Order: sequence, then C-alpha cells, then structure tokens
Amino acid sequence: MPPYKLVSRENKRENTVVRVGDCRIGAGAPAVIAGPCAVEDEEMLVKLACRLKRMGVHILRGGAYKPRTSPYSFQGLGKDGLRILADAGRVAGLPVITELTDVRHLPEVCRYADIIQIGSRNMQNFELLKEVGRVNFPVLLKRGLSATLEEWLLAAEYILAEGNREVILCERGIRGFETYTRNTFDINAVAAVKYLSHLPLVADPSHGTGRRELVLPVARAALAAGADGLMLEVHPNPENALSDGPQSLRPEELAVFMQDLQGAACRCPRVSA
Amino acid sequence: MPPYKLVSRENKRENTVVRVGDCRIGAGAPAVIAGPCAVEDEEMLVKLACRLKRMGVHILRGGAYKPRTSPYSFQGLGKDGLRILADAGRVAGLPVITELTDVRHLPEVCRYADIIQIGSRNMQNFELLKEVGRVNFPVLLKRGLSATLEEWLLAAEYILAEGNREVILCERGIRGFETYTRNTFDINAVAAVKYLSHLPLVADPSHGTGRRELVLPVARAALAAGADGLMLEVHPNPENALSDGPQSLRPEELAVFMQDLQGAACRCPRVSA
Amino acid sequence: MPPYKLVSRENKRENTVVRVGDCRIGAGAPAVIAGPCAVEDEEMLVKLACRLKRMGVHILRGGAYKPRTSPYSFQGLGKDGLRILADAGRVAGLPVITELTDVRHLPEVCRYADIIQIGSRNMQNFELLKEVGRVNFPVLLKRGLSATLEEWLLAAEYILAEGNREVILCERGIRGFETYTRNTFDINAVAAVKYLSHLPLVADPSHGTGRRELVLPVARAALAAGADGLMLEVHPNPENALSDGPQSLRPEELAVFMQDLQGAACRCPRVSA
Amino acid sequence: MPPYKLVSRENKRENTVVRVGDCRIGAGAPAVIAGPCAVEDEEMLVKLACRLKRMGVHILRGGAYKPRTSPYSFQGLGKDGLRILADAGRVAGLPVITELTDVRHLPEVCRYADIIQIGSRNMQNFELLKEVGRVNFPVLLKRGLSATLEEWLLAAEYILAEGNREVILCERGIRGFETYTRNTFDINAVAAVKYLSHLPLVADPSHGTGRRELVLPVARAALAAGADGLMLEVHPNPENALSDGPQSLRPEELAVFMQDLQGAACRCPRVSA
Repeated sequence: MPPYKLVSRENKRENTVVRVGDCRIGAGAPAVIAGPCAVEDEEMLVKLACRLKRMGVHILRGGAYKPRTSPYSFQGLGKDGLRILADAGRVAGLPVITELTDVRHLPEVCRYADIIQIGSRNMQNFELLKEVGRVNFPVLLKRGLSATLEEWLLAAEYILAEGNREVILCERGIRGFETYTRNTFDINAVAAVKYLSHLPLVADPSHGTGRRELVLPVARAALAAGADGLMLEVHPNPENALSDGPQSLRPEELAVFMQDLQGAACRCPRVSA
Repeated sequence: MPPYKLVSRENKRENTVVRVGDCRIGAGAPAVIAGPCAVEDEEMLVKLACRLKRMGVHILRGGAYKPRTSPYSFQGLGKDGLRILADAGRVAGLPVITELTDVRHLPEVCRYADIIQIGSRNMQNFELLKEVGRVNFPVLLKRGLSATLEEWLLAAEYILAEGNREVILCERGIRGFETYTRNTFDINAVAAVKYLSHLPLVADPSHGTGRRELVLPVARAALAAGADGLMLEVHPNPENALSDGPQSLRPEELAVFMQDLQGAACRCPRVSA
Repeated sequence: MPPYKLVSRENKRENTVVRVGDCRIGAGAPAVIAGPCAVEDEEMLVKLACRLKRMGVHILRGGAYKPRTSPYSFQGLGKDGLRILADAGRVAGLPVITELTDVRHLPEVCRYADIIQIGSRNMQNFELLKEVGRVNFPVLLKRGLSATLEEWLLAAEYILAEGNREVILCERGIRGFETYTRNTFDINAVAAVKYLSHLPLVADPSHGTGRRELVLPVARAALAAGADGLMLEVHPNPENALSDGPQSLRPEELAVFMQDLQGAACRCPRVSA
Repeated sequence: MPPYKLVSRENKRENTVVRVGDCRIGAGAPAVIAGPCAVEDEEMLVKLACRLKRMGVHILRGGAYKPRTSPYSFQGLGKDGLRILADAGRVAGLPVITELTDVRHLPEVCRYADIIQIGSRNMQNFELLKEVGRVNFPVLLKRGLSATLEEWLLAAEYILAEGNREVILCERGIRGFETYTRNTFDINAVAAVKYLSHLPLVADPSHGTGRRELVLPVARAALAAGADGLMLEVHPNPENALSDGPQSLRPEELAVFMQDLQGAACRCPRVSA
C-alpha cells in the first residue's frame, strides 16, 4: 500500500486529462510545451511564439521569476516578464506556462499564465504546494533534483489533497555522478509514474540532458516510454541566451522534430497505462 | 575564483562568530543545540529543556512548522508550537531555534525564536533566503539533500548579499545510494567549508545518520574535522516520538556525551581554519 | 579532446557493425538478446531457446559463472552451464552469449560461447579487459554500476588497444538513490554513447529497471534513443527463477513485444548517429 | 538478520586483531599505513621509507600493478615495483602492502608483500576474493566506489568463507554528485562497520577527499568515529608524482600529524565497539 492516495491508479484507473486552451494533456497525442528558459525581450519572444505556433507547438513557456543558483545571476524580469509572456501568447494564440517561486506572487501568476509551474527546487516547498492546491488552475509539478518517486507523488498529493485535481507531473532529470550531462534523465520514472499514477506526465529533456545534441533522442525516448508530452527549451540564438543556452534547441531543429512527431506519434509503440 | 564572494575566506580571513544568548558559535568551544524533532507537549518540553540546560546544552531546538514528506503526517503545532518552545526556553534559560517554512511566518518566528532555521528542502527557496537576509537575526542554513558545496555557499551568499551576516551553516547529510543509513553525513563538507568560508558550521548527525547508535561517533568525527558545534535530536521517549524517533538520543545518552565533550573538547585535535 | 581514441567517432565516423551468426549488431535493425539470468536446467533451456528463436530473438543469453553478491547464493553451474547453453543454442539455431568472470576461464568460454560478456562488476577489471582484447572474439562490455561515460569508454579502449575491435557496449542502469527500481536506466548514456562512439550499443532494461512492468516501456525508449539492440531476461516461470525472477519477462510477454518491434522498428523515429 | 555471518559481531563479539610485523591492527592504538601511490624510483622510495619509519609510520604502501582508468596512463612497474617496494621495506624496517589485480600474480605478491590490498574496482571480483581467501595472509579490502555496506561486508564474507580470517576493511570514499572533492568519504560507514562487524577498519582520506588540505581533518574524523588506522598517500614531491599528486601529503605535513597523533590518540574520545 503506497502512502499516497488521490494520485494513485488504485484510486482512479483512467488517465487524468488536463485541458489548457484546446490542448488536452494526457489524452493521447503528445503535447509540446516550448519556449526560452527566461523571458528576455518582447519582440524576440513574440516572433518566436508565432513561429512555434506555426510548427504545431501547443503551449509557450518562459520564465519571469527565475530561481538562480547565484544571487549575482540574471533573476528574470519579474512582473514585466509575466506581462511580456502573456502578450506573446495572446499574439501567437498559445496558452502560456511560467514558474511560481513565492506564495505572494500567486494572484499575479494566475492573472497572466494558463499553467503554474512549480520548479524542482520548490518540489518540497509545502506551503507553496498547499496554496496552489487551493486555486482552480492547472499546475505543472517538476520532480526535485533528488526526489524519489514516492516523494514526488506525495508532493502532488499535497496539491490534490487541497482540492486541485489539475496536476501535470514533469520529469526533468535527477542529480547523479555523471559529469558529461547536466542531469540524468530518469526514463524509469516516466514508465513507473504512468504505471503508479493517473496523472499526466511531461518530459523535460532540455534540463534532463543539458546538451542540445541529446535533447531530441531523449525526447523520443520519453514518448516511447509513455510520456504524455514534452517541455523543450528553444532559443533563436542559443549562444547569446541569458540562461541555459547549451541545452536550448534552435527553432529550425525543433521544426524538423515537430514534423517527425506529427508523422510518427500515432504509429510509435506506446506503453498502455 | 569561486562564484561566491561575501561568504569566502578570501573575502574575510577570520572566523565569523555568531552570538546567541551567551553562546558564541564559531569562537572555539563546540556549541550544542539539542531538543526534540517536533514540539509535541508543553510539560514534556519544559522538563526536557531544564534537563538539557543542566547537561550544558547551549540552545534548545524544536519544530513548530514541520515540512513533512506526506500531507497525512503530523504537520507540527504551528503557532502554538512556537509559543510552547519559547516558554520552555525561557523557563530553562536557553535560547531557542525553530524552522521557518513560509515567508509569511517570518515576523512570528522572529518574535518567538532566537535563531531562524532554514531546512534542507528550502535551501534553494530563494525568496525565503532573501527575506531572512533582510532581518537582523541569526540564521542556520541547512544544506540541501543533494546540494553541492558551491550551491550551498551560494545559498548563504543570498542571505549575506541582502545584509544579514549572522549565518551558521549546518551539514546534515546528503542523499546517496546507501540504504542502511537515512543519509550520508558528508565529513568532507565539514572540512571543506571551514577551509573555503569564514562562516561557522554545525553538524547534525541525527539526520546525517538516521540511527541512534551512529549519532555520537559521527558527532565526535564532525568536531574532529573542524565543526563549530552540533545539532542533536533528543527525546525522553524515542519509541513514542511523533517524528524521527529512531535517530533521537535518550537524555541519559546525551548527558554522558556532554561530559566527555567538556573533558575532551579542548584537547581533541582540531583543524586550524 | 577526450582521453579515448580508438572508440571515438572522431577516430571512425561510420558505425561499427559486429557480426554474430547472421545477426549484424549496429547495422540498423534492433538485435534482441534474450534468455534466463542463469542456466538452470537443460530441458527448460532447450525448450525456451526454440521458443525464442520462433519469436525472432537473435541471440541466446544465459549465465554459467554467476557473480553473486553473497557467497551463499547460487553461483551458477560453471562448466556444465556452458555446455548446456551451447547445446541449447545449437538445437535452437541461436548464437549464445555468457559472462566471463575469470581470466583462467577464457579458453573455455571461447570454446562454448559466441559472444563474451564482461559484467558490470568487472568493467574495470583491467587484466580481464586486456585478455579479451587479445582474442579475436566479440565482447559485450556492460557499464559499471557507477561508471561515468568516460570511464566506460576508456574500459572499451583497453580492449580495442589490445587489437580486438569487436566490442558491443551495454547500458544496464546505474546506481542511484531511487529505491522503487533496482537501478536507474541511463537513457542519456544511450544517446551520448551513440554520439561519442562508433561502437554498437545494446540496452538491458531488465537490470536497468528490476521490475517486469517497466522492462518493455524502457526497452522501447532505448530503441527510440538510438540503441542498436536489447538484452532481455526471460524465464518460463519467473516466480521460481533461481535469480532475477522479478525482472524476468514471461515468454508470452516477449512474443507480443517482438511482433510490435518487427512492425514498428523500421518506422519508429531513430536518432541519426 | 543480515545476510553475512562470519564477519558479523553477532558471530564474534570481540574485535579481530590482525598482526603485521609488530603492528597489531584493531588492538587500540591507530595503525598508520603510508607511502606513495605508485612505486616510481628505488632511491626515492628507500629514503622516504626510512623517513616514514622515523616518524612512527607502521606500514609502507606502494603500488606496483596500478589499475588505471586509461590504458594510456602509467600502469606501474609491475614485478620490478614489487621488488623495489620489498627492498625499501626491508631497509627501513617496515612491513609493506601492495595491490593485487590479477589472480595470476598472487604467488608473486605473497612473496614480496606483507599485506595484500584488494582495490575498490576489484571489491566484487569474486574469483580474486576466493583466491585470497585460500591463502594464509593478511588482506586489506577496499570498499567499492558505490558498494553498500552490506555488499562490502559480503565481499569480506567471501574471503572469510574460504578460510582466511585476517581481513582489514578500508573505507576510501564513495562516488557521489560532489565535484569539489574526488570522492565522498563515508564517515557513517566507519561507525556502522565497527558496530556491525568485528573486523578492523582503516580509513583512506587521501582517496576519500582527493585534496591535500582535507586529508588530515578527515583523518582525525575517521579516528574519532572509531577507525583502527589510516592509509595515507605521501610523496616527497607531489607536484611531480606520476599519480595522485594533488591528494598526496608532503613528508613534513605527515610528520607533524604523527606527533599530534601520538599525543592525542590515547586521549581522543573513541567509540566503544
């Protein structure tokens, strides 16, 4: 008997589907969330968003409040970033997701975003989990850097226990001894979470690998293991990105992948939940 | 050139000493922080606090807001717990430390406690770090479960960068593959942090081992490696503790250790910073 | 500049193809190696081998010399096991692979097997690597439990440096903090090794997950990430297997997967080296 | 009930003492094993050995057969190295320890050395363990890079089960995510092994930290946690060492430590087994 209840398949057999705009995450066809790590510049973001929409991307991502390891790194544009992201989404016709790092920003983030992202460093920020559990709003919960599957599912349980059922899990790689990659993408976790829980799961191979050349092979792997979607960092000019350049795809790379995906998704063997 | 500045020994040669009541953490003689994992019951806590004071313990610990992995576990007594802890400290004549888990609780915690504890799960809750950086109050910053030394020192840098210089670091074990122990106490980190930084460091072998029989050997080791103090869980009746029973010392075990310590501390070889 | 030479793609652009019987590992279509963890009983193995052959499995696996964590666990049938494995392979018309654990067994293993397996625990048994580097015989080199990609590729370099170019790499999961799975299958390693090296790579999701229900989803993922084949444990009666029962597929489960695979392999998006 | 028998304290209460020359490892006073990582040059080694003897070092270490990650690194002087090491020990009046990496070298190593070292990479080279279990000769068994305590004790059990009771365990650090140090010295393992087993344990803080400035603080910690001795790398000219220079102490640093130790050892609080 696992210690979690509401998130488990024993409690609910059928997959939970989270609707965002006209995208249905968990309903079968892979959902693709893409965008820059951080919102940097309005004109760039609007152009990129429109290009992503044309490729078939479903949701626009962009960080406004950035949790950075160093206090001396770019911390994001804050409220201005939220506004720019929302505008870019509106112009392109894409719903948007952004990270919430402080309970006091919740009203603001709910006003501008369509999905609230809880980052890895806040996976066990239980006060934040309880607050997003009390709003009627989709939440994407990233796995902590060294969280076990049980701890991750219990973090989701905190949100469901407060009443919010619209939770999407996101595997983004765990911390290990390997130095070639930024993190170790845990493919076992993708298969195991789909087996243990009814919640939809998206994969973030950008953080999961930290290297552009590995992002798409691992993205394909995640879908083959049963992921319901992908979260990908893309930047028109990765060399000059203010953060995460080395793991950001170029728009043209993503465009090719989106075509493959639309061709292959329906035929590629999927795990049956 | 490390990415942190204010916390580094290059920036400040001499050890920082944090004064709490008449205890001076970092000044040489080991400081001992002890108490139950969670504040459970007023009468028990007052009795325990007085007993700890008589043994020579310097600071009383006790959790009021408990970050628990499961939403269904005991979450602490909250504000009542803070009041009970403060009363027990006053009666026994001990300053008290308790964990802050939410920026909104800061005024309350500052009112009742003498040291603010930031737990492992919040080591990279940067909004919380910035807020405690803006108060003039001692802060004990626990290392995250899988934080590198650099990430830990940068988390401390967030606090110092906001103006608060009274930071105590706490090594409490990292997550690894070993299943016999709850965590892997990182003795290298004790020696390395004393080498890299001027901030005082205390060791928490209770969480660092998770097993009563290992707590005191590892406590001795931490002091021999250069730790400025210890944080120990003690409970009059570990079998019935609401949390962390298996790693809690019995008062009589701690009493014997405190005697050894007062005898040995001055003579035991110490690392020179 | 990586420290390895002969194994790197800089040294040799085109994929190395290792021929075993009429199977060409690294040539495109996924190679499937399957069989029980250990050779236990001749009649059972012959029956299983014939069934595997009918499913389209290419190579038969079976352990004769078993490296076991405890001296009190079943250590394998040794030379008898080799003979039984070879006979089963001959009857079924399948080449066979078995593990070499001692330099002194090399002539014997070369006499009975078609591929020499070097297990995870011997990945850095450099004397063993040098010896298999001096024979003209295919070698499957499993990744060590906590070997970095560089250490793994350098272990292969030991073999190539002695003259043997027929090396197949095998990702079988790394050791981490997760307790739900036996190991953490490193999908990044699959993509990265195909990028860094010209050597063929097979995936072992049986050890990589340790749980039957996760083996096939992770097998699909490995192929989608670019693996050239799979190594799968299968047992007619996992409940009674002398080792690795919980991670062994049932023959009927493997049969269904082999059909999917023959249908999907050519169409599933593959990473281009 | 642990899976190991002969190595456990349940099976034998009193500490096992291994005699080497007139040093008794496990009898109380810390035994110090010191020397260069690899045997490089006869004159240098003889001079160093005599200096170590004068400091009070008990056993001389030096590698002749070196297991190196890369086939292109210095592999040791082999049989010549063994002879040089034995001569240096004889001249200085010190017993010697060296690593065995191949079952075929066993007679040769037994002829020249006083203790056989089994390195981390061979901790689960079970054929090697069985062979050293069949000789009547002291064996130092290093812990594997990612071996659990149970796996390590079971590896020792392989040796005892073959009849050889003279086993010394050596904690040398485990592999983790930290990049500042070479390995993570596991102080919990020191305390736990002394609790679980009657075998003597020595600590290798040179490999356990990988940094000269951390070696002695961690050495003190290991003794405080209950270690029966230390294994230290020392080199007259670390900058020019063929291997492990950055973690090698200078003779003058070791000399000061040996004096502290002789002063402090008897008084420093020790864990009672």
